[in-house]
Amino acid sequence: MFATIKRILIGRPLKSTELGEQKLNKKKALAILSSDALSSVAYGPEQILLVLVTVSMSAFWYSIPIAVGVLILLTALILSYRQIIFAYPHGGGAYVVSKENLGKYPGLIAGSSLLVDYILTVAVSVSAGTDAITSAFPGLHEYNVPIAVCFVILITILNLRGVTESASILAYPVYLFVLALFILIGVGLFDILSGGVSPERHAPIGTPVAGISLFLLLKAFASGSSALTGVEAISNAIPNFKTPAPNNASKTLMAMGILLAILFSGIVFLAYYYGVTPIEEATVVSQIAEQTFGRGFLYYAIQGTTALILVLAANTGYTAFPLLAVNLAKDKFIPRMFMIRGDRLGYSNGIIILAILSIVLIVAFHGKTEQLIPLYAVGVFLPFTLSQSGMMVKWMRQKPEGWVAKLLTNTIGAIISLIVTLMFFLTKFNQVWTVLVFLPLIILLFRKINKHYEAVGEQLRLTTCEPAIPIEGNVIILPVAGITHVVEHSLNYAKSLGANQIIAVYIPFEREDEAVFEEKWKKWGQEVRLVTLLSPYRSIIQPLMKFIDTVERKAKEANYQVTVIIPQFIPKKGWHHFLHNQTSFYIRARMLYRKDVIVTTVPYHLKK
Amino acid sequence: MFATIKRILIGRPLKSTELGEQKLNKKKALAILSSDALSSVAYGPEQILLVLVTVSMSAFWYSIPIAVGVLILLTALILSYRQIIFAYPHGGGAYVVSKENLGKYPGLIAGSSLLVDYILTVAVSVSAGTDAITSAFPGLHEYNVPIAVCFVILITILNLRGVTESASILAYPVYLFVLALFILIGVGLFDILSGGVSPERHAPIGTPVAGISLFLLLKAFASGSSALTGVEAISNAIPNFKTPAPNNASKTLMAMGILLAILFSGIVFLAYYYGVTPIEEATVVSQIAEQTFGRGFLYYAIQGTTALILVLAANTGYTAFPLLAVNLAKDKFIPRMFMIRGDRLGYSNGIIILAILSIVLIVAFHGKTEQLIPLYAVGVFLPFTLSQSGMMVKWMRQKPEGWVAKLLTNTIGAIISLIVTLMFFLTKFNQVWTVLVFLPLIILLFRKINKHYEAVGEQLRLTTCEPAIPIEGNVIILPVAGITHVVEHSLNYAKSLGANQIIAVYIPFEREDEAVFEEKWKKWGQEVRLVTLLSPYRSIIQPLMKFIDTVERKAKEANYQVTVIIPQFIPKKGWHHFLHNQTSFYIRARMLYRKDVIVTTVPYHLKK
Repeated sequence: MFATIKRILIGRPLKSTELGEQKLNKKKALAILSSDALSSVAYGPEQILLVLVTVSMSAFWYSIPIAVGVLILLTALILSYRQIIFAYPHGGGAYVVSKENLGKYPGLIAGSSLLVDYILTVAVSVSAGTDAITSAFPGLHEYNVPIAVCFVILITILNLRGVTESASILAYPVYLFVLALFILIGVGLFDILSGGVSPERHAPIGTPVAGISLFLLLKAFASGSSALTGVEAISNAIPNFKTPAPNNASKTLMAMGILLAILFSGIVFLAYYYGVTPIEEATVVSQIAEQTFGRGFLYYAIQGTTALILVLAANTGYTAFPLLAVNLAKDKFIPRMFMIRGDRLGYSNGIIILAILSIVLIVAFHGKTEQLIPLYAVGVFLPFTLSQSGMMVKWMRQKPEGWVAKLLTNTIGAIISLIVTLMFFLTKFNQVWTVLVFLPLIILLFRKINKHYEAVGEQLRLTTCEPAIPIEGNVIILPVAGITHVVEHSLNYAKSLGANQIIAVYIPFEREDEAVFEEKWKKWGQEVRLVTLLSPYRSIIQPLMKFIDTVERKAKEANYQVTVIIPQFIPKKGWHHFLHNQTSFYIRARMLYRKDVIVTTVPYHLKK
Repeated sequence: MFATIKRILIGRPLKSTELGEQKLNKKKALAILSSDALSSVAYGPEQILLVLVTVSMSAFWYSIPIAVGVLILLTALILSYRQIIFAYPHGGGAYVVSKENLGKYPGLIAGSSLLVDYILTVAVSVSAGTDAITSAFPGLHEYNVPIAVCFVILITILNLRGVTESASILAYPVYLFVLALFILIGVGLFDILSGGVSPERHAPIGTPVAGISLFLLLKAFASGSSALTGVEAISNAIPNFKTPAPNNASKTLMAMGILLAILFSGIVFLAYYYGVTPIEEATVVSQIAEQTFGRGFLYYAIQGTTALILVLAANTGYTAFPLLAVNLAKDKFIPRMFMIRGDRLGYSNGIIILAILSIVLIVAFHGKTEQLIPLYAVGVFLPFTLSQSGMMVKWMRQKPEGWVAKLLTNTIGAIISLIVTLMFFLTKFNQVWTVLVFLPLIILLFRKINKHYEAVGEQLRLTTCEPAIPIEGNVIILPVAGITHVVEHSLNYAKSLGANQIIAVYIPFEREDEAVFEEKWKKWGQEVRLVTLLSPYRSIIQPLMKFIDTVERKAKEANYQVTVIIPQFIPKKGWHHFLHNQTSFYIRARMLYRKDVIVTTVPYHLKK
């Protein structure tokens, strides 16, 4: 039944050779990989105004130079990641770049902070999208958490079905969102140029403002740069592109950068020109749309596509997280299971873990994940800084043709990213300090996992170790609970193995029982040696363990192998298990943890 | 660590031979087995007045004849159970008596309704006791449920330590309660005889009352007979008594009957003479105590011991439930595990199951288990009726000396019990209808369990079946995942067993991998045959299962046994398990459910 449900939800399994067909073309890739970045224009401009409004409304003109700063940062990031795409055509993004150029630990910092960040992407984006929907339908507001969880599950199923199929579904809302904002910005600019908007609604650029400070402007800049979260997604996902992957990825990245730049500057400019003040009841985009179109069809279209793209932004996390996990698993920093492709060729384990962790975050924060935004931004800008520093090192080492220009690009990017990261720590320490606690813990865990895998590999490799001790004979121990068909079957099996010695073991709780059983065995036991272990405390496992210890010690001297044969009932129906003592299960579990004892389970299938 | 905590709470394990020392003497048995019955005088008289008050206060004099009725019922029950004790000296009470004389199904009705009833005893008594305590300290009222749960856990631990030790602790409160009520009744009667109480406070016996009906009087009688719950406990627990067990049990039963009769009639009479009206704020006993002593030390002593004995009444359930469970398990109606004695020689599984189920009831009803009282009473009177009908049948069949008197005793008891049971169904149907749903379901379950055990016994018995098919040879299948020390070790073991055929199986996901491994095996494989099963859908279990199917079919023709050898990593630390695929676990589980395949687990202990 579980298999059938899985089939319906996920689709039929795909052969490994069908992998090529799952690759993305540019149009689909743009939709699937840029929804996170593009959706951030829904809150990025607002973040700038939220800082400036703490001074006065006349400070709003500063949003224009700040937006120019963000655009410069965006340009630097896009150019830098373009260089990364060509330098690392197999993907990996910040993790691979930092690891190769700066060393293991910077790589792990970048990798683990991105890993956590993708979880935050899903939680924050889905919550924000849900908020937008329940703002439109206030009756649903109390169901915020279950709605958000349903969205996560829905996106998870789409991703488990496979990358291409989910892309087809996800492409439309992204392009609709871009189209809707283009219309908004176009109509807004036309209104302004045709003189339909009074220029008195905003203070002119350059108006002196009392109380403004560099600290405040940097804080506003840092806040505004949260609109750039998500631009790294493409460079991580190069293996998902159709060949030639690097060229396609690079073109997609440029297209995304241009779209993001247009939407971001358009929204910032309109907000400034219209004199929009951030209020709690309506977002900045919503206010602009209302002033431009009134509360008509186009207003609702913009609100609707905004909500949708926010939910879909979560999908970026679903594309990037499993791929990054594969890279970390290949380097043996996280469990191997993240490298296994599922039925539909996606990395199912990564997808499922991401879904579970983001649902935990949504439930733990009751769907109010806005407080996580600064944390989320830090988790992006930390790897930005590291990967660009890595590229700086790379250019200085390798000095390819035109390396000075490349170095300059990455240096500018690195410095601005570093400033943004530091600004977050300086201005919003109480929201981002957890990074300083959790990142070291995660890296410590990754190191422990790595050490374990290395140690296992060491122990298994045939070339480096002495050959295994030869097995020169076998001793079989057969615990018996009575004289039944089960025991008969096990005894026949033990005899067929041609062991050097077979010992049947019986554990009576009372002396009378001991004598009775010994008598019975004499008649029935086919001359197999019987040992009885009286157990006055009614424990089966302890005396058996002690006995096996003794046998094992002797066997070892002769290089004999000890095998314990345990009969096990297999009832016909699952609930019947409750009706039988689970002794054989306990014995097997305890036994396997003892060195050099092999456990053989002889099933006895009950027919009724 | 778990073992140490267990030791501290439960005490050192006891040898089976120490069982005799755990038996009860009469004084301890009275305390341990009668707290349930005696504690019911705390609410029994009140139940009568609660019905009569619906007519008028002048109807209160009917409580005297009703009490006489209850005393007759009590006498009949005590005499009947005395006869049962001698007729069934090995205990078993209503279940055994009904089963032997009336047949399997009446026995199961009695047994299962008592089994459920003991759970209700624990839940109802502990909740009522907790209520009494939190009424005295209203600040604790909101913690009713956790306090009640703590009491259950405490009583459970006492019972897991063993019967005698818990009896020593429990004896004092019971005797204190009896002493306190004796003083109350004595002082009250002295006051009345010395003329200290005005006789005008009550209507004289025989006053005509408007609106009284036979139905109402029977309802009051049924309610009042809830004071008799618990009198069957002694007859179930005969094996717990010191020898001569039946004599000791019979004397204890008589003592309990006399105590119960005195306390019950004393309370009813004082309530009538004082003209006490049941109110919500104070129980009837509390009102009598207040009028007799004022709110002084003796008042609080009575309230305190009442609260304590109610909590301890739960202990009756702990004594009776496991013993009844043993009887049902011996007859193969409930899982065998209820027959196993724990470290301290108590039937730990029964004790623990009882604790869990009563905690579930307490939590589910938020500690307000008063609504369960009628259900609880029905669960007692149904088996009363059945066991006494059983005794009637027994006397009529066996006709021992003086059987007519014995038959008469039991007949009276049976008829009154039946009337009480029917009255509950007639007057409180909305509170007791669940019995009609759950009892049949429980009995159905018991029957299914019984059928399963009978079928298993049938299959295992050597005499009734054909001899096992001889094993004339062995085929060993060895799944390999690479060429490592683990595989080397398993291969050596397989070879040492002298099987007729060893087949190594490798499952590649891609064609290239297949060829590479075949090449490697040629050099390394010690001439063991290798089969590769290409798995394009990346499943390990499915192709392996299919292959084993084929091998098994061939092997069967030659009476060969198929064994699958599965290597298993045993990491040094528990958390390392998460770092390895659990393939070997899945293979073993799937394998064992297939007929005739034996699974051998070769542990490979990682050293780091």
